[in-house]
Formats: sequence, structure tokens, C-alpha cells
Amino acid sequence: MSNFGFLHLRVVNPFELAFREARSAVGAAPLLAQAEEFKSLEEAVADCSLVVGTTALSRRDPQHTVRDLQQGGRLIRKRFTAGLVALLFGSEKRGLGNDHPNYCHWCLHIPTREEHRSMNLGQAVAVCLYELARDAQAPVAAKESAVATAGDLERLTSLLLEELKASGYVKSSQGHAKSRSAAPIEEKIRRLIRRMRPSTADAELLLGMLRQVLWKLRS
Amino acid sequence: MSNFGFLHLRVVNPFELAFREARSAVGAAPLLAQAEEFKSLEEAVADCSLVVGTTALSRRDPQHTVRDLQQGGRLIRKRFTAGLVALLFGSEKRGLGNDHPNYCHWCLHIPTREEHRSMNLGQAVAVCLYELARDAQAPVAAKESAVATAGDLERLTSLLLEELKASGYVKSSQGHAKSRSAAPIEEKIRRLIRRMRPSTADAELLLGMLRQVLWKLRS
Repeated sequence: MSNFGFLHLRVVNPFELAFREARSAVGAAPLLAQAEEFKSLEEAVADCSLVVGTTALSRRDPQHTVRDLQQGGRLIRKRFTAGLVALLFGSEKRGLGNDHPNYCHWCLHIPTREEHRSMNLGQAVAVCLYELARDAQAPVAAKESAVATAGDLERLTSLLLEELKASGYVKSSQGHAKSRSAAPIEEKIRRLIRRMRPSTADAELLLGMLRQVLWKLRS
Repeated sequence: MSNFGFLHLRVVNPFELAFREARSAVGAAPLLAQAEEFKSLEEAVADCSLVVGTTALSRRDPQHTVRDLQQGGRLIRKRFTAGLVALLFGSEKRGLGNDHPNYCHWCLHIPTREEHRSMNLGQAVAVCLYELARDAQAPVAAKESAVATAGDLERLTSLLLEELKASGYVKSSQGHAKSRSAAPIEEKIRRLIRRMRPSTADAELLLGMLRQVLWKLRS
């Protein structure tokens, strides 16, 4: 809850009276300390304008609408500004009771594989709240470092070709013209270097390596 | 893992020898029983063509690309058909170690509120796998060419390091231990090779070049 910015925990008849002293991940202690206790579900959700239950079954009861998390999440987000929204989880062992969905406007279901529907409570909560927070801010693209210029790539290509000639991997030209075998391998290297898409810094690093190896091969 | 259909668990040096007997949610026991144990991260990811680390920090190290889960998830899903993908989680207490990202192509980050970034391990895993399974029905992107495995990348790393030692770019070790100067450059090369993301065919091509140059340098 705390990870995803949902800070209001309400607990109905907590099984352990000592839940406030429960060990929690670093940072979540204030949330636990401020949790509100209620004697009944009815009281706990009295001031909420939308109450959504959670269920491991995609169809718990034909009388209740069950939406999957992605679709349901969109509806919930739309209601954040209209009033308090309660997302209801049952106990770790049994989930919500049979009458609990009656207090809900509809139920939410996390799509899982059919063979393994039951989820750990903490994980189910994390997944639901992640989905609700998911589109809060549009994903920021990872900053990519500057990509090497075509000039850098060409320098890499020629140096690598020189190195391969000096090592005997490519036959070095005997006359003024390129040797027969150098031309296709040169194209091969040119494409290889471009597929790698090195950054400016990586091109610099590679050029330094190539220069040293070439110097050694020739000395 | 089992809820979202990810059935292959690999464990590196499990802290508790008895992890196989760990209590698990109903239905997940077979997954634990079939978990594979490895002595090192390198071995564990050797046959994977994409290795993605996880980090609580949106910017762990400027040398490593960190993508948020939504954006990174898209990239990972595209690669499901191109080979094995490893999603790497550190221990509950400490997360991944400082050198672990060097074995990763990039790192993944679950967006959380800034005041509470550290997540429970089980919840982080659930959230990541939920996101990866989230659009499972979405059309699969065009098949990419086969990407080099971590084993290939490691071979490239060692050969390039050997070449740089033979050329004098890196001081070669005098004793049994790595020389002082080789260790940081080795990490630099390891990351460089992973940033390049060569295909299987390109890795093969590069390995051939490196072998020839190394042979020439030593002869």
C-alpha cells in the first residue's frame, strides 16, 4: 500500500489484536499505526462512494458483476475524484465471505492461470494497487545516451578492418585497389558496427581499444 | 510465479538449504520442487538471451539503463519468442549486489512513491510477473533474430579481455590473481558487450575475429 501511495487502511475485526505492532517493511509503519478499526464491514465502508470487492474466481456469483483488474482498474481510477473508493480484501485463508459481495458495487478479479487462481493476500494487494497507480503518470522513457555519429561508425569500421587485415583474418590488399576478399568483409563489418548501435562513449572506448591492438599487431 | 504462469525458478546459492521444503501457497509446490540450483549467477543465466535485473532505484548507476516496469515489460514481452529471458531478483534483505547488474542487459524498476521505494520481494515478483502477463493476449511482435546467449556474451568478454591484455591495453596479471587494472576494465567490457546486444550470428562473427587477432598477437 505504502509503495504505491495508498495510505488509508481500514481493518474490520482484525484477527490479531496486535496487528498494529505487526512487523512491516521499512517505511510502512506509519500506515499501520494510523489504520482505522471497525466492528463491521458496513461501518467500514459507510463513507465510500464506490466499494469494490476482490475475488479469486472470475465468476463468483452470477448476481455480481466481476471485472478483471485491467478493466475494473480503469473504472476505479475514474472515480478517484468523485469520492472515497474502498477496495475490499478478505482474510489470507478464506478470502471474502459469501455475504461480503453484497456490500460491493462489483468485484475485481486478477487474471491468473486457471490451474492456480488463489493468490497470496499481500501479493494480490500489491498487484491491484500497482495496476491502480500504473497510469498515474505516463511512463517516462529511459534516457538513452547519445548515439555515435555516422563518422564515428565509419572510423570504427576502418580501424576494425585494418586490425583484421593485420591479423590475417582478411587478406590485405597487394596493389592500390582493395583485395578481392576485403570488399565483402568490409561491408559485413560496416553493417555489424551499425547493428551494434554504440553510444558516443562506447564508440570512443572501442576506438581506443582498436588503436592499441592495431599498434601492437604492427609493431 | 505460478499464478501468472512463470514456472521456471532458478536459484543461485539459496541461503536456506531447505528452500525446497519452504511452505508455499496451494498449487506452487511443484514449481519449488522443480527449481534449479546454481553456484553462480553466470551459470544460472548462461543459456538466456536476455537478462534483466531489478532495482528499487530508478537510477542505480548511470552506466546501466534502468527502465520502468511498463516500458521494460513491453521490451521483455517482445523477446519471449527469441530465446530464454531471465528476470533477476536479489535477496529480500539486500536486493541485487553491486556487480550483479554487470551481468544484465538492463535493469527494471517498479515505479513507487519516492518516500517508499523498497518493496517486499514476493510483492515485487508478483507485480513484475503480473505486468508481463498483463497483455499476454496482445499481438506478439514480429520475431526478432535470435539474440546471443549470456554464455556467448561471456565468451566474447573473456576473449576481448585476453586480446586487450595481449596488446598491452590492459596490464596482464603477473600472479594467480587478477591484476589491479584488469578487474575494472573487465567489468567495463562485460557491460560494453551487453549494451551491444549482438545476435547469435554477430556473436559468432565477433568470436571468430577475436580468435584470429588473439592468435596473431600471441604468435
